[in-house]
Parts: sequence; structure tokens; C-alpha cells
Amino acid sequence: MSIKKISQSIHRITLLVLLFSASAKAQIQKVEPPFWYAGMKNPELQIMFYGKNIAQYEASVSNNVVIKNVEKTENPNYVFLTIDTQNLKASELIFSFKMKNKVAFTQKYSLKERRANSADRKSYDASDMIYLIMPDRFANGNPKNDSNASLTDKENRKDPSGRHGGDIEGIIKNLDYIASLGATTIWNTPLNEDNDKQHSYHTYAQSDVYKIDPRYGTNEDYVRLAAEMHKRNMKLVMDYVTNHWGITHWMMQDLPTKSWFNRIDNYAQTHHRREVITDIHASKTDKEICLDGWFVPSMPDLNLRNPLVAKYLTQNAIWWIEYANLDGFRVDTYNYSDPTAMANWAKSVTDEYPNFNIVGEIWMHNQAQLAYWQKDSKIGAIQNYNSNLPSVMDFTLQDQIGSAFNEDEATWDNGMIKFYNNFALDYLYPNPNNILVFAENHDTNRINDGYKYDVAKYKLVMTLLATVRGIPQLYYGSEIGMGGDKSKGDGGIRQDFPGGWIGDKNNAFTKEGRTELQAQYFDFTSKLFNWRKLNEAVHFGKMTHYIPENNSYVYFRYTDTKTVMVVFNNNAKPQTIKTDRFKENIKNYKSGKDVITEKTFDLTTEITLEPKSAVVLELN
Amino acid sequence: MSIKKISQSIHRITLLVLLFSASAKAQIQKVEPPFWYAGMKNPELQIMFYGKNIAQYEASVSNNVVIKNVEKTENPNYVFLTIDTQNLKASELIFSFKMKNKVAFTQKYSLKERRANSADRKSYDASDMIYLIMPDRFANGNPKNDSNASLTDKENRKDPSGRHGGDIEGIIKNLDYIASLGATTIWNTPLNEDNDKQHSYHTYAQSDVYKIDPRYGTNEDYVRLAAEMHKRNMKLVMDYVTNHWGITHWMMQDLPTKSWFNRIDNYAQTHHRREVITDIHASKTDKEICLDGWFVPSMPDLNLRNPLVAKYLTQNAIWWIEYANLDGFRVDTYNYSDPTAMANWAKSVTDEYPNFNIVGEIWMHNQAQLAYWQKDSKIGAIQNYNSNLPSVMDFTLQDQIGSAFNEDEATWDNGMIKFYNNFALDYLYPNPNNILVFAENHDTNRINDGYKYDVAKYKLVMTLLATVRGIPQLYYGSEIGMGGDKSKGDGGIRQDFPGGWIGDKNNAFTKEGRTELQAQYFDFTSKLFNWRKLNEAVHFGKMTHYIPENNSYVYFRYTDTKTVMVVFNNNAKPQTIKTDRFKENIKNYKSGKDVITEKTFDLTTEITLEPKSAVVLELN
Repeated sequence: MSIKKISQSIHRITLLVLLFSASAKAQIQKVEPPFWYAGMKNPELQIMFYGKNIAQYEASVSNNVVIKNVEKTENPNYVFLTIDTQNLKASELIFSFKMKNKVAFTQKYSLKERRANSADRKSYDASDMIYLIMPDRFANGNPKNDSNASLTDKENRKDPSGRHGGDIEGIIKNLDYIASLGATTIWNTPLNEDNDKQHSYHTYAQSDVYKIDPRYGTNEDYVRLAAEMHKRNMKLVMDYVTNHWGITHWMMQDLPTKSWFNRIDNYAQTHHRREVITDIHASKTDKEICLDGWFVPSMPDLNLRNPLVAKYLTQNAIWWIEYANLDGFRVDTYNYSDPTAMANWAKSVTDEYPNFNIVGEIWMHNQAQLAYWQKDSKIGAIQNYNSNLPSVMDFTLQDQIGSAFNEDEATWDNGMIKFYNNFALDYLYPNPNNILVFAENHDTNRINDGYKYDVAKYKLVMTLLATVRGIPQLYYGSEIGMGGDKSKGDGGIRQDFPGGWIGDKNNAFTKEGRTELQAQYFDFTSKLFNWRKLNEAVHFGKMTHYIPENNSYVYFRYTDTKTVMVVFNNNAKPQTIKTDRFKENIKNYKSGKDVITEKTFDLTTEITLEPKSAVVLELN
Repeated sequence: MSIKKISQSIHRITLLVLLFSASAKAQIQKVEPPFWYAGMKNPELQIMFYGKNIAQYEASVSNNVVIKNVEKTENPNYVFLTIDTQNLKASELIFSFKMKNKVAFTQKYSLKERRANSADRKSYDASDMIYLIMPDRFANGNPKNDSNASLTDKENRKDPSGRHGGDIEGIIKNLDYIASLGATTIWNTPLNEDNDKQHSYHTYAQSDVYKIDPRYGTNEDYVRLAAEMHKRNMKLVMDYVTNHWGITHWMMQDLPTKSWFNRIDNYAQTHHRREVITDIHASKTDKEICLDGWFVPSMPDLNLRNPLVAKYLTQNAIWWIEYANLDGFRVDTYNYSDPTAMANWAKSVTDEYPNFNIVGEIWMHNQAQLAYWQKDSKIGAIQNYNSNLPSVMDFTLQDQIGSAFNEDEATWDNGMIKFYNNFALDYLYPNPNNILVFAENHDTNRINDGYKYDVAKYKLVMTLLATVRGIPQLYYGSEIGMGGDKSKGDGGIRQDFPGGWIGDKNNAFTKEGRTELQAQYFDFTSKLFNWRKLNEAVHFGKMTHYIPENNSYVYFRYTDTKTVMVVFNNNAKPQTIKTDRFKENIKNYKSGKDVITEKTFDLTTEITLEPKSAVVLELN
């Protein structure tokens, strides 16, 4: 290199240093996504730059990258630049912003290397068991981050609606506990920053969707959680929120456009009656308020019909998958947003990751209404709708689980027939084995409370979840008998897991720490789900069930080589069941071994079950 | 004519006379259909001949008619001959039965002339109101036929399960009463011969499906009923039973083949859980017992998978339409029979009569399960099934009607929302306006009993039925306040209509005879349905409804030129409703006139309704 060239280089470096250190930093306050990946299937990347009057500058990119599209809104502090990353390798790009043909400031932008086989990542499915955690209430792994100077809601463990200090570190520390339960997957309620002044612990009112809330840890901690899970062959599911952000979201201080949110000037709360979405008789006004009304006043309703918002949320979702190496999504309040926009969002995500599972919270009480929302639904097709959403939650099953095991006397529609009738409608679903089956979650009554801490009924519930079609999901704490009363508010069903906090007298995370009663719950759950983990027949086997008689329900899960027979006696007295009726499934098998008690049952004539009990028999 | 020819003719006539008077009558005991019609779309006619060893004879037909197919069963007393009537005019055919090339006996068979436009007959639809009658309990027009020497079950009006003597003549005599109610159509429970030793009054256990039970009248009386109705622009709907006959059916004495019925040698009762039909997890045994098990021991289950049975029932159905000049069918226990066979049956009938409406009794409690069975259902299509059944009954609505008007305080899912939620699922139906809407029928609780004879609640029920989409159906007697308690047995809900019997102290058929209370019921019903009769907006207009607020429900039925606004206040106190929310339907209308009170309501700001009341406003 000649002196002259060195001099020019130094000159150039000086210029860059000046740009970055002075105007660039002052000018650009946010770049989102903050970085991206080379080699994505969809090569189009739309980057949002936020800074004082940034829309008035002319942008260009290094590395011969062409800006395909520039989108501006009525607020000059935002500009959305679309580039084509098709032929780009992992690299550092530099965006330059010119005024009157002079570069006023620049912005570095990284295109990173993707992990190997990132696009082909596997996801959760019916071979998994999902453990649902509310991080604030699970375990406080790092007591130093319980409050944060820049965030309003401070730690107050005495307040059922306050922050209790649980965090990512707490989850990481207890991964072995979770794995010991037979769980293979964690869905935790959201971790992104939520600066709401109260109830921020639930974290559905997010103030920054590219940032883990410091009270839970850092973005790096979240990546580490995924990595620690993958080491254990476990999967991490992010709770994604498309419908709304929090009222304290940074963008609310300086809206890119009013149409980023719905009804920004004329607040209305949604009526929550999502029946209107598919209702051919619905009024326009009811439909509009359903989708555009806000969930609650603290959660501005995102307008996904605005292509900028749709793109923003799509890229944000993909960014998290790629960045944190995620295994799946659970999506909150799924059908509170524009259905077409949501279908496009789900398609964009699954186009990028074809095996990626996404379960949407469609909280409705009718199988046809649930099935409507599963990808390739024939019911959706009635209205030319395809949600592209791979999975939904079996809320109709959950509706029944809460009551059926209290019904000692069967009537025409009480007792075990409730389950039969639920599964009898599986033909409505395009993919009944990719449905989440659950007894409870962070928004419902606690099953142990509903069943008055009757271990026998808990066991019936778990046996059902572990053996029917679909993906079983457990809510943290039930496995050690935790309850809580929803009528006392959400805090009632979101209590702290005992042992998660230093000083907890009871530590249910360890064998030694569990009370005898907790051990009864835990040991059963652990044995059942560890058995399930290795049994393909209950993952992907066919199901044949028989109409319940005498409040007893019998079904089979089977592959060509393995048959599991499940028998429930929901009576408060012993029940003898003749096996002759089940011969099309029992075939030539003579006996079955219960996976819990390891007791062998002769199947040649009849079997007798204890009151309020079930057996899971591996036939042989 | 020459002497020779005359001589030959005489010879031939003598021979015929001999044949008919001697062997023919002795040999042939039944010919079914007993006659047929020339010029049917489907020219194939399969005639069943029943007589001692008839299958051993060789059959031929006069008029150059070729026998296309001869079907025999294991019973030699039956033969099924198929002829092609394509080019035949109305005529008398002669079937000859030969043994060893000699005519042993013959049988005349008439092909009759069809009525003009028979194939294009109109049927009932949403412009109609159907009045459901149990003939034995409606009116005894002819006291001489109450019992019949050849039929076991004798008149015994004191027995709630016995025959009370009502008959066709009783219906004919009261047609003007029925018409005065605003009813345009009668569906009466069956009239075919039912020789069961008890409960024959319901007549669903038929012993001869080509013959009106003599205790109701004659076949000719039934034809006269239809004719008298047509004179009054009314329509007659037959209650057809495909699933079963009665144990005393003549064929049970000498089965053509065991496979005419299901499980003739191994009786099982159906479990009534028709969910198994569409259930992808159902066991074969549960499915088989559902469809092949008998409804009750007195009703042998017809095997429609046997083509002879399917053909027999198809022709019988068509024969009654053509013979009695029927306007529609209601089909009993529709989904207790093989679904494919039923689809073929419905197709055969509607191929012959393209406008013919058939409503099937699919007594299920889930809209998707009901919608499955309506013609061209997208839900049926999930399983490649098309029922070809034009109409089903809105049992989910009926489920709600029995309770909603008792719910003075609305909760999330109680009160008027029950109706909203029912209609919100109309997208599942291929044709929601061709569904029967009803509060009760001969198998359910009586609405007046359920609502404790509260006239206000009765009015709410009727207002709903008269103004929502679909075909309203009333059950006889409710319009004069009749009740009855189903918990006391079917007799409780099938009491005699007062005035139908000579000597009845109360005659509710006449204005003079009605009590003041009966008049309250009747006058309201009559005014409402006579109004409905002329209002196209509630027949075929669009429907827009609004999510109920404060237990009040507002919907509109409208065409391009006419708008009807219906408002329900289900509260026990007055309710004021602001009209602003409904502007997309109220448009520029300023007021509405209630069709019952004829009071005008100003719609510019708000309207106030009395407690537990509804208004039906014609907007202007």
C-alpha cells in the first residue's frame, strides 16, 4: 500500500469514525430488526429506521445492495427500507443516509450466518409433552434482576398481581427437574420487555418486542435457555403476541402512523365474541369492534391490515426463531386480529420453517369453530379461508375435563361420554393429532382446585392427557398438587412454585424437598410421562374408542406392532368390564401390563378396576 | 269385426275371466307398488309379487313390455320384476305367470296418468308455516272408525298411551281453523297402518306402508285431505319412515329374505349415539349397532343396504307423492339408517321431484353435526358424503328455546346470546334458510309446560320462530296454551286437542269456544303468522343480527325494498335500547310499526320495550 493510499484510508476511517460517533448515534434511535440472516428463503428484508426526520434523507447501502423499496409514513422519523438479500453472504452492510448528496450519517447492519439446517428445524409434535411456565412465578434464579431502574413495576412478592422475581435463570436451573417429569418442551408465557405499571409479570403488554425484559434476564440468557434445553433434547416454544403491544411500547410515544394500531383515536374494547368473524349474519359494526377493539385499555391493538405492521411482526417472529434457535410458537389471542393478515403471517413463518409448529390460542367452545382455524381446514374452506396455522388448542376437551371426573353417575351426556363426544368430532379437524390437549393453563381454573385436591381425579386427568391424540400440555405446579382459585383473580392461579425462591420452606423441585402428598402427585406424573416419552403408539398411533358404558371409557392407541389399551372407571365403586366387546382391538393379545402399577391384567374375559381409577395397559 | 274374430275374442275373455277369478286371486296375495304411473323420469319399475311359490313361475308382460330383471330371494313366495316404462302410456298391463310354458295365472297392473306438472310440483319452504299434528290426538271426525275388527289396539281414550280416535276426517273438518292460524302446511305424524298391540296411535311401527290405517280413514280419505288442503293453498307433508317398520308388518310373517331387516336373528337395540357415524375413531361394533340395532323391540330395523329394500322404500315414497299429491316429506329417525343408502333414497326422490322438500329428523346437538346432513354440505364433503337431504331440523335452536326466556339475567352464555350464538354458526349449513325452526314437537317437552304457562314467554318464542331464518313449525295445541308434561310419558305431551271430540266441554277450534286465556294465545299466534304469511322479508330476506347487550337481542330481516326489525327484551324490567348501533340496517328509516300492537316506534334515538316482550317492526 502506497503512502497516498494509506493516507486516503486513514482519511476514510476518520470520516467513518466521525459519522458513527457523532451524527449516526444521535440520528438513529432504533433499527429493527437489529440484524438479520443471510440465506433466508424469503430474500426480502424490510428494515425500519427510526430517528429524527430520517425520512428526509436519501438512503443507500454498501456491497452493491439495491434498495428495492422505500416506505414512508406521515411521521418523518420513520423510514422502512426493503433490500434484497438473495445473493448476500453473511456480512456487515452499511446504510448511508444522505442529505443534498452528502452522507449525513451511516448505520452498520449485520447479516449473520444461519445455524446449520436452520430452515429444516424440527418442532414440537404429539411425541412431546409441553410444560407451561409463567416465568415470574416459577423460580427466581437471579435475585439481582427482580427490579430494574428503568422499568416501573418493581418486585413485590406479597402482591398476587405484582412481580415476584422469577426469571430465565430460574428456568435454566430447573431444567433437569422439568425433564425428570417427562416433559420435553417448555412453553413459557412471554419474556419480552413489558413496562406496564402493573401486572407486568404476565408480560402480554410488551414495550419492546426485540428485547427480553431485564427482570427476566438478557437476550443472551434467552438464547442460553434454548441452548441448555437443546443439550437435554428439549424444545423451547415462544409465546408470541400478534394482536397487541403494551401501552408503554416505545412506539406509542411517536407513532410511525396512526394506522399502526386500530382505533387509536376512538378507543373501543373488543366484545370478545369472536363468533362474529365467521358469522354470515353479523353486523359490520360488531365485526369491526371484535377485531379492532382493544383487548384491554393497556394493550393497543395492532393493525395487521397495515402491510408495514404485518411485515414488522413477521420479521420479528422469524428473527426470534433464528436468533434464539426456537422450536415452536404458541400465539396469544390468535383470532382477535384480522384473519387474512394472520393467515399471511403464519404462512410467512412456516414458509421459512416448513416443520415449525405454531399453536394458536383460539379460545372457543365448539369443535367446528376450533377446526376452522387449523391449517387446510375444510370448514375454513367454506369461507375460502385457510389459516395456515398448524395447531389449535382443544378447548372443548378442556371444557369437559373440569367437570367429567366429578360425575360419579353417568347420564346421557354426563360422565365419560363427554370425552367420547369430544373425540367423536375429530373428523372436523384437518389434523387432530396436532392439537394441544390440556386441562388448564394460566388463564383457567386450576384443575387441582376444581377437583378439591383429590389425587385420584388428578391421576384420571393426567392419564387422559397422556394417552389421547394430540400434544399434552401441563401447567407448572399441578404435578406437585398446586392449586389456586381463579375466583380470587389471576394471581390465584399463578402462584409461586415452592422452592423457586431462596428461603422457600418447601422445595418441591427436589425429591427430598417434596412433601409426601407432593410426591404422590409428582411420582405418578413423572412415571406416566416418562413412559409416554418412549411410546410411539400414544404419539402417532391410531385411536379407536368405544362408547362409554356404565361411566367407563375404553380406548386403544396402536401401531402395527404395539397396542395400548386405556380403561377409565369414573364410578365411585369398582367396575368390572367384559373384554369381549373390544375384540377388534384386543385381537390375540391375552393380557396387558399397567404402565403405572406394573400389574398385569388378564384380558380374556373381564377386568375389574378400582373406584375412580384408570389403567394404561401395554398389551402382550 | 268378423264372426271368427268375435269368437276368438270371447274365447280370450273367457280365459282371462277364468284366470282372474280362480288361480290369480289365490296365488297373488300382494303386488307392490299396487299400481304405478306412466311418464316418470326414472322409467325403471320394480314390482314385488307375493304369493305361494311365485318365484317358481316364469313371468311375462303384455303390451310388448320386456322384463329387464328378475330378482328372487331365498323365499320362493316373492319375486321382484323390473320393467322399463319408458315408452309406455297410461294403460293396464297384464303380468302372466307360466309354469311349464302354460299361463298359470295373471295379474292386472295399472300404469296411471300423472297429474299435470306432477314432477315440477312446488314444495314447502321458508314462506310456509308448518302445523304439526298427531292425528290420533287432534280431532275425531269419524267416531265410527275408532277401532277396527282386524286391528288389535282398540280405542281407549282414558289411556294416555291408547288410541283416542282422532282421524283424517278430524283434520279435514278443522282445516279452516288451521288456516286461520296462519299455517300453510301440515305435517302430521304417520297414518299408515300400524297394528302394534299398544302405542299404535303414534303409528311409527307400521304394518303396511301402502295402506292408511282404517282407524284414521282410507287411502281415498288421505287423497281427499291433500285435495282439500290444496283448495285452500295449503301443503301436505307426509311423515315417512325409512328406518323401521312395525313388528306386525305383514312381511314379518314370511320374510322375503332375512336380510330385509338387520339383526333379525341377533337382536340388539341401537345405542342411539349417532356420533359414531362420522367418528373417525369409532369401533366397528359401535357403528354396526348404531345403524343396525333396532330402535325398539317393536320396530324391526330395515336393511337399506339390501338393494331390494332400498328400491322398495324409494318406490313407496314416490308412490305416495304421486298418489296422494303430496307437497313434502318429513323423514323420521333419519340417521339411524345406512347413510349411503339414505343419500341414494333422497336422491331418487328428488331426482323425480326436483323441488320436493324433505326434512330429516337428525336429532343432534351440534351445528356441524346437523349441517353434515344437509344436501351439498361442505362438512359432509370432509368425508366425501352428500346426503342429498334438502332440509334438517334446527335442534340446537330448540335446545336453547326451552331455557333462554327463563333467563332474566344475562351471563356470558345465558339469555339472548344463546340465540345469537346459534345463528352465528349458520355458515356451517349449505342452506340455512331451509332448516326447520321449532320450539317443540311430539317427542319433546311442551313449551308451555316448560314456561309454566306464561303467555309472555310463549309470545317471545313464537316471535322468534316467526321472524328468524328457516321454516317455522308449530306443534298442535300450543297456540291455545296447551301444555303437558313429558316426564309423565309421551302421553303427557300428546293430549287431545279440546273440541276435537263430540262432547268436549271446551272447544278451542272456534272463537266462541275458546276460553279467554286460550284466546290470548290464539289471537297472538294467528295475528303473527298471518302477518308472516305475506311478508317476503321474513321468508327469504337477508338477516343481520347484533350481539345481544343487556339481554336484549336485535335483528333485521330485509330485502331491497322492505326491512323488518325485531327487538327482544328478555329482562324482567323495561329496557331502553339506543338505535344508533343499528344504523347500518335502520338506514334512513325513521320509525317502525309493530305488527302485533300496530303501535309506531320512533327509531331516531332509542326505543323502550316492556319487560319480557318483543316487537316486530315494519320500518318506514
